[in-house]
Formats: sequence, C-alpha cells, structure tokens
Amino acid sequence: MPGTSQPTSSPTAYTPTDRTVPTRSADRASYDKELVHAILDEGYVCHLGFVRDGAPVVLPTLYGRVGERLYVHGSTGSRPLRMSGEADPGLAVCLTVTHVDGLVLARSAFHHSINYRSVLVHGIAHQVTDPEERRIALDALVDHVVPGRSRDSRPANKKELAATAVIRLDLDEVSAKVRTGGVNDEPEDLSLPYWAGVVPVRREYGAPQADAGLPSGVALPDYLTVL
Amino acid sequence: MPGTSQPTSSPTAYTPTDRTVPTRSADRASYDKELVHAILDEGYVCHLGFVRDGAPVVLPTLYGRVGERLYVHGSTGSRPLRMSGEADPGLAVCLTVTHVDGLVLARSAFHHSINYRSVLVHGIAHQVTDPEERRIALDALVDHVVPGRSRDSRPANKKELAATAVIRLDLDEVSAKVRTGGVNDEPEDLSLPYWAGVVPVRREYGAPQADAGLPSGVALPDYLTVL
Repeated sequence: MPGTSQPTSSPTAYTPTDRTVPTRSADRASYDKELVHAILDEGYVCHLGFVRDGAPVVLPTLYGRVGERLYVHGSTGSRPLRMSGEADPGLAVCLTVTHVDGLVLARSAFHHSINYRSVLVHGIAHQVTDPEERRIALDALVDHVVPGRSRDSRPANKKELAATAVIRLDLDEVSAKVRTGGVNDEPEDLSLPYWAGVVPVRREYGAPQADAGLPSGVALPDYLTVL
Repeated sequence: MPGTSQPTSSPTAYTPTDRTVPTRSADRASYDKELVHAILDEGYVCHLGFVRDGAPVVLPTLYGRVGERLYVHGSTGSRPLRMSGEADPGLAVCLTVTHVDGLVLARSAFHHSINYRSVLVHGIAHQVTDPEERRIALDALVDHVVPGRSRDSRPANKKELAATAVIRLDLDEVSAKVRTGGVNDEPEDLSLPYWAGVVPVRREYGAPQADAGLPSGVALPDYLTVL
C-alpha cells in the first residue's frame, strides 16, 4: 500500500538537513514524526511554494496525508500540477502548514511574538498516475477535511477522475517549529507598567448549515457532531 | 509618510497581471484594494515564499501593513532578510495570507471544498534602512498583532533595533481569491442520501493569561477586552 513502506533513517524522527536546520531559534525546531504528523493532520490548508519563471509562487491548497506521503490535488489545468507532469522530473516544492495558538504580548515591543506550530516539507513533487494510489490519495484529501467523510459521499466518477491531477510529496526532508509558553521579557523590563501575557487563539466550528436541497430524513452525521 | 504616496493605476483596484490572473476559478479572483486590505489586516501569519539555491522556501512569519506597503521583520541573521540586503537588488518573494471560513461538504467527493479568503502578493522585497520608516514598520508589526499595542509597550532600544532587519514589499501585483456560499453539487446528485452543507470555521480567543510576574495594579487593557 502506498505511503507505508518507505525506508527512512529513523522510525521516529526525520533526519535534519542543511535546509531543515533553522538559522535562528533552533531550539524551537523538531524532527519528531509524531509531532509533524499531528501538526499536519490538524490543518486544512497548506501553503505550497514552487518556482515559476525564476520567481516564487505560494498557493494555499488542501492536502491529505497517508503515512509518510502528502497529497495535493487540483485541476489538470492548474499550473503547479501541469508542471509536475509525467514527462517532467518533478517539481521542487516547499509545503508549509502553520497553526496560530496565541498572541504573546511582552512588555517590550521587541519581544512580541506568537505561539505557533508549523511544519515545513521540502522535496520534489511527482504526479500520481497509478489508479489505486490516486483513489487512496483522493479519499485522504476528503478525509483530511472531515475524518470518515470519504465513505459517506459519492466517489469520483471517470469524468471527475480525468479532470483531477494528484501530486505526491514524500515526508523526508521535514521539520517542525513550535513556540509555546509565555512572554520572554528582559529582566529589567519586568516592572514596567505594561500588561503582559498570552491571548490564546483557537479554531472554533459553528453549527453545521445543511444544504437547502437536502432530502428530508438525511440526518447530521455523527462525524460532524464531534467537531 | 511611507506607504501612502505611491501612484497606482487605480485608486480602488490593483491592475491584474499574467501572474495574478488565476488559470482556474477566475471568478473567485478580486483585485479590490479594500477587500485585499481587510484580508491582510485579519491575518496574523503570512507565508513568505522565496527562492534559495534554485528551490522554493515558504516560511510563516508575522507582518504589518502601512497603506500600500507590507513589512516583514526578523533577525538580521535570518536567511530571507540577509538575502534582501542593501547591496542586493532585492529579493523576489510571494507573500500569501489565507483564512479558512468553512468546510464545504458536498454529496460528491469531487465537490468537497472549503470557504476561504486569500491574498497573494508578488514582488521584490527590499531592506528598509531609513530609521523613520523602520520605526513606522516596527510599530505596524506590533499593532498588527493587537491594534494600539505599540503605544502601550516599551519601544525597541538601539541594541534591539540593530538586531532587527525589516523588509518592505509594495502592494502592487496583488490578487485576492475568495470562496463563499454553499455546496455546488451536480443536479443528478441532489437526491443522494448524504448529508451536505457547510460547517463554519472561525477564530476564537481564549481569556488573556497574565504573565506571572506582572506588577499588581497593571490592569487588562481595553484593547484586549474587545478581542
């Protein structure tokens, strides 16, 4: 099965490389696979960077994870997906996912920050052409939005499959970066008359809004009541 | 004053270019300045893309806006900030900000989507060396996290200023992309027995957590009670 059988240098951590060791705040970096997976699985949108005509492009897009592989999909006509076509050697990408967890208000302007968790994945993205891997990837993309949803919706038909390009990015050159905790003010600033602390930030879900055309008798599924 | 005096082709909209007209879902694109500013002002983290050794890098980072200019800051030792130094012609970047507003669950897997608002800014980032513009930029960065906060914290001192690099990116080649509304299922799918609709997603703030070392008598400021 795709995504579960690639050898890696460690079963629990990614191997740091020149470009996954940050030049600053290296103490915030982690290569722990469990942490990386958790950050990835909590996000809805990644920011996919690639180079076009020598200039960087950063597009927000949905993604899915199957083991140590990430999948991104899109129209067969979209630019990054065209650029990673079969005839190409792949597309160099950087895929980043970030969660904002808190606003860190220090007494000094300089030490203002945010609490966050982010993952950066560097690598070469390749088009997925194997029908079975494409099916697994597309299920993962739907289940990434709501776990369990792929089994409770109409699968893609031939026409839809033909219109959908899927690219794969292996989790190999990967790092997480995390800031948690409180303010880091200078000792001489502690008595200044400015409020200091952390304002937590989190994601909230509103009540699901059923489509107006929903047939009567179609109930809200359990997987939505737990959000 | 920086950020308010650049001529643009229209007072209310950015001029579309080859790279700001999307190849897909062009109906979701907008060049309206008010919309772009609103999306930018609501975000905490942008994803800054640049090219290093021929490969893309996408870093999450704080930003601030002053009129038609964005500012990003960082350590003088950080890579993108070093690369846009005075001796350089600037650094080609793509800066993207995205908000997730809802999960769109269609009856068909193919039509699953999310409601979102995003802004892409293409351009050349330059180091800011003018002391007055640097001060304005750093205030904007703090006020972007919490409006009004720069006046209620200790300003950066000489040592901190010397350690901080600021880069500027003009809002010139800019587009917004927005998806709103409900599911777009195929007519023949409407009677399928799958729940369909939208789950709203929004940002919530927790109660501010005061730093343990806060002197007694320092009250929670008004600008935090309105979050």
